[in-house]
Amino acid sequence: MATNGASTNGAKKHKYNPTFTQTVINATGPKATPRVRQLTASLIQHLHDFARENDLTVDEWMLGVELMNEAGRMSDDRRNEGQLVCDVLGLESLVDEITFKLASDAADEPTATAILGPFYRHDAPKLPMGACIVDEKTNKEGDRTWMHGTITDFTTGKPIEGVEVDVWHTAPNGLYEQQDPDQPDMNLRGTLTTGKDGKYDFYCLRPVPYPIPYDGPAGKILKALDRHPYRPAHIHFLLKHHGYKPIVTQIFDRNSKYIEDDAVFAVKDSLLVDFKPFQGDPKADFELPYDFKMASFEDAKKHGVAGATQPSTA
Amino acid sequence: MATNGASTNGAKKHKYNPTFTQTVINATGPKATPRVRQLTASLIQHLHDFARENDLTVDEWMLGVELMNEAGRMSDDRRNEGQLVCDVLGLESLVDEITFKLASDAADEPTATAILGPFYRHDAPKLPMGACIVDEKTNKEGDRTWMHGTITDFTTGKPIEGVEVDVWHTAPNGLYEQQDPDQPDMNLRGTLTTGKDGKYDFYCLRPVPYPIPYDGPAGKILKALDRHPYRPAHIHFLLKHHGYKPIVTQIFDRNSKYIEDDAVFAVKDSLLVDFKPFQGDPKADFELPYDFKMASFEDAKKHGVAGATQPSTA
Repeated sequence: MATNGASTNGAKKHKYNPTFTQTVINATGPKATPRVRQLTASLIQHLHDFARENDLTVDEWMLGVELMNEAGRMSDDRRNEGQLVCDVLGLESLVDEITFKLASDAADEPTATAILGPFYRHDAPKLPMGACIVDEKTNKEGDRTWMHGTITDFTTGKPIEGVEVDVWHTAPNGLYEQQDPDQPDMNLRGTLTTGKDGKYDFYCLRPVPYPIPYDGPAGKILKALDRHPYRPAHIHFLLKHHGYKPIVTQIFDRNSKYIEDDAVFAVKDSLLVDFKPFQGDPKADFELPYDFKMASFEDAKKHGVAGATQPSTA
Repeated sequence: MATNGASTNGAKKHKYNPTFTQTVINATGPKATPRVRQLTASLIQHLHDFARENDLTVDEWMLGVELMNEAGRMSDDRRNEGQLVCDVLGLESLVDEITFKLASDAADEPTATAILGPFYRHDAPKLPMGACIVDEKTNKEGDRTWMHGTITDFTTGKPIEGVEVDVWHTAPNGLYEQQDPDQPDMNLRGTLTTGKDGKYDFYCLRPVPYPIPYDGPAGKILKALDRHPYRPAHIHFLLKHHGYKPIVTQIFDRNSKYIEDDAVFAVKDSLLVDFKPFQGDPKADFELPYDFKMASFEDAKKHGVAGATQPSTA
């Protein structure tokens, strides 16, 4: 039983009932898995410490509950507001770092990762190599860009055949297609598969900075923290191959505003790219060369990568 | 910019990027209130520490996001699943202790508090003193109980006139009326107002232990933790008076099962009560005398009660 700290008579080391948190942790039964036991014990300890250290009141806690409930109610297969709340608190970037970290002494390293973000959609259209992911009828604006590169094995340096390259980015108005009734379904999304040479190429637009949706709990948090909601211009990638650790990443336009203060803290040095003025191709004004290096599952395990398995999003 | 820890060359004290958390905390702008700044900085620090200490993977984090989103989607004006998730982790009981704590050296103390729980409803019917909150047509079972007592000022000992006594408990089937289509609206709920003598009395049922709803995220957590979902038999109270600190509490049947292992950790010694066999009243088989002591706002402040204001639920 959780005894009322105020009514016990013994010497008190703590302002609040000093046995309460252990009581809650100890309630876990014998059949809980070791990992569940570890994670919940740690979560309970941190949540309780957070409450005690800040003398968290019922009203403040209830504000948090209502924010989280509101986030859940806004979430569906097109929007994940709970994820967005985590993103503005840096949590997705952190678990991304944790999950895909390679031992820092690796001689070489595969492409760095960045958060998936809440706008990924399964089943983007499969396109032939060299295709254009821009719906030309609706997207009159934007700098047309030819992106291309090679996907290699980060240990052997050899090109990888059969990599599924899933790409998505926002329209010039700063909206992903599922946020924007004026864009056709799956606009600015596509999946391409590499051939024997490991090369990929496609036409897209040079992305622009945009605000994350701030009409929900994530926006309320940003407002309360006096923070802007903008992300620097970037293109999302999810690379999959049965023999390789999937790569979830974003590449960022080095010259974009907000590179230094991304609202969701996803920018990494190695993911900065340069859009180069491009001539001689009537379909593109800019060229964007970018190579990816993938770690095989075997190598990933060898180098101590946590979670070297297919992600739940794959 | 959040630099990629793996690509920096300096000496590393930490396994993960050692500046990341401070980068996120420092993003807070100058217009955030001191309290918001404090709470979010502390929450970010604890969430990030939790993730790092446990090498939390993207998949594990996403399971948590989906649980919270699911809780939000299940929540409406009749059910608060986000609150229930906090309850099974002991968080509501802890913030209850924090919020309503009196300095432990107070000579006397007002009635101890306990969590509001997710089944409180606003606007329970106002009833005359001595009323019965049981719908006699539907509730054929259950031990009929006459509950009565006096509400006094904990400093002066004088009875308090005009206290609104809001009471609610479950039916013999273990369900609150809003969970049960077979019970009439507002069954087993009522609000009574004390007269000059500070006395209250009403007829109810002797409550029974019951499981909290385990068809949602809270139930998933309990299952993963190999814990039962049961609460010991209890009656809820919310006491309000314009001059006094509101009391949110529950009283527990001392002989009930689960007194020692309440699924939401709300039991306190001083809230244990005895149902006494009662003769001579055709309307009741048990008697339950219980007195409440309320702290005036002035006394509450004097004794260092945090949050000595009307709760958001009032």
